[in-house]
Amino acid sequence: MRATLMYGAGDVRVENVPDPVVSLPTDALVRIAASCICGSDLWPYGSMQPQDRPVRMGHEFIGIVEDIGSEVTTLRRGDLVVAPFAVSDNACPFCREGLHTSCAHPRAGFWGGTGEGGQAEAIRVPLADGTLVKLPVAPDSALLPSLLTLSDVLGTGHHAAVTGGVDERTRVTVIGDGAVGLLAVLAARRLGAERIVLMGRHRARTDLGRAFGATDVVPARGGEGIEQVRELTGGEGTHVVLECVGTRSAYEQALGIVRRGGVVSRVGIPQYEDAPVGFGSLFRHNIRLAGGPAPVRAYIEELMPDILDGTIEPGRVFDAATPLDGIPAGYRDMADRKSLKVLIRP
Amino acid sequence: MRATLMYGAGDVRVENVPDPVVSLPTDALVRIAASCICGSDLWPYGSMQPQDRPVRMGHEFIGIVEDIGSEVTTLRRGDLVVAPFAVSDNACPFCREGLHTSCAHPRAGFWGGTGEGGQAEAIRVPLADGTLVKLPVAPDSALLPSLLTLSDVLGTGHHAAVTGGVDERTRVTVIGDGAVGLLAVLAARRLGAERIVLMGRHRARTDLGRAFGATDVVPARGGEGIEQVRELTGGEGTHVVLECVGTRSAYEQALGIVRRGGVVSRVGIPQYEDAPVGFGSLFRHNIRLAGGPAPVRAYIEELMPDILDGTIEPGRVFDAATPLDGIPAGYRDMADRKSLKVLIRP
Repeated sequence: MRATLMYGAGDVRVENVPDPVVSLPTDALVRIAASCICGSDLWPYGSMQPQDRPVRMGHEFIGIVEDIGSEVTTLRRGDLVVAPFAVSDNACPFCREGLHTSCAHPRAGFWGGTGEGGQAEAIRVPLADGTLVKLPVAPDSALLPSLLTLSDVLGTGHHAAVTGGVDERTRVTVIGDGAVGLLAVLAARRLGAERIVLMGRHRARTDLGRAFGATDVVPARGGEGIEQVRELTGGEGTHVVLECVGTRSAYEQALGIVRRGGVVSRVGIPQYEDAPVGFGSLFRHNIRLAGGPAPVRAYIEELMPDILDGTIEPGRVFDAATPLDGIPAGYRDMADRKSLKVLIRP
Repeated sequence: MRATLMYGAGDVRVENVPDPVVSLPTDALVRIAASCICGSDLWPYGSMQPQDRPVRMGHEFIGIVEDIGSEVTTLRRGDLVVAPFAVSDNACPFCREGLHTSCAHPRAGFWGGTGEGGQAEAIRVPLADGTLVKLPVAPDSALLPSLLTLSDVLGTGHHAAVTGGVDERTRVTVIGDGAVGLLAVLAARRLGAERIVLMGRHRARTDLGRAFGATDVVPARGGEGIEQVRELTGGEGTHVVLECVGTRSAYEQALGIVRRGGVVSRVGIPQYEDAPVGFGSLFRHNIRLAGGPAPVRAYIEELMPDILDGTIEPGRVFDAATPLDGIPAGYRDMADRKSLKVLIRP
């Protein structure tokens, strides 16, 4: 079959690879109906050292179950399913607490670590009963793009808002106008926030952010951006800052914006290890730090009904679509910010 | 009157200073009945550069109201009162949310910033209506030492447990066997925690920690300490780690001990600014970071009844007492760990 491989920074290829098969009794084989390129794929696309053993790409997909192992009990051939970006058994203590991204099963983990990727024609899914969730629509449903966001970006934006404690009493700033940032806006609105400041400088994206619920847009960054958000909030800053970028400068921007006693919730993968947390940053005013890889599996049941009944339309983050062969161009367009998020239809 | 002044590291003197007076209509003048030396006083005692203008010391006291300004409405001469370690108006939006240490009033702040200190015969208290809390006991009550802990160390231990989300479902580790650490144990037990690991190496202190509710004591630090706590908790670590020291090594120890999805709650004043917060430390497993200067004013009404009825006896952290003249020796004894916490009876 055809699959997407990254050989190094800027070097993504769609190549022939061996067809995946069910190899463990808990596996499923899924024929992919829709997948996509993630903003987080752009980190290695920008910086990966060239290597002989390329990495299989893609951690968001919807597909049709084509085969199952002997121990798979909740799925059948022909089921349409969505996969979270992390494999989990949905049964260990962490999964039961809703922290599927910290699943204790030895075969749990992120796609890529499994040797498989979703930007392909098909995929072997480990721990299929725990990982996959059935979708109650037909494979040609117009809802597929929105349902695909359940695999990562919608659940990730929702996680930012949940771990930030967003509700109707909190004012919120979202840093970043990528797909996750925009869906963090949508999630914050959905959880009741009435004042949502979106920090981003790409007009088409921030316009979508406004459609999702942003009440204010601040294109400025750094000190100027901080000052503008403070001006919008009577000098106080916002109770919650959803940091959806992952750079240290975005973290520092969040520190400048968060209200005393507030929360900085991070879902952008940190591209730094050390950062200010002492008396002059977090400690003095009891600022809390939250977030991490979203346990999107825990949120699918809650979020899916709102997609099915049209309350939310997160699939609007897809502004381009391509078959497999167009994936290298899709990476380029996303890196160049010509595309917000590219849908893949194998 | 006599008051305590710090001139530099290791140089604490009790000297004659001008008598304090009511200078603003919101002030009160309080004759001090009991105060004490704080673990946090040992940071400047260990490192302060010598200076010409010494710093007034002491931020925990109980005393009798001797005079009040014309706008003070809730206090009368003769009232016995306890003062939190931060001055606040108890009226601004932050105070109303229970975050008195971030009070927005321009005259709010920590003692010392006020030019006053509690290790003295008397003290001028700004924003007296907001700051002081009346005590329903006589000045010679045997409960005074326990009630004095409401001014800082009990409320600080309680704050660690509250911001850590301690309840009957959480396992807890407390790092540090100083007065705050020991009272964090007491607070965690009071909030329902059934498994409390105390990390400390001073037998007399950890014995008091056991009396306060610690179920396990781990004297080892660093990697060895982390391993021992993990062994005690089935490899998982504890849901909450209350970091009551303030060093970067204590922070890193907390990272090693906290369970996936758990909380590191800090109340020891950080002696560092940057620390690990990235994918390899907090982010990967959704570890949250919480804590800061405790808004002890917010907790006094909740905690005082348990002292009055004998349910808790936090005053047991005082293992020495001295009149004013013994304060320099008291600092030395606490720095040398001969005393846990020194009570001052002017």
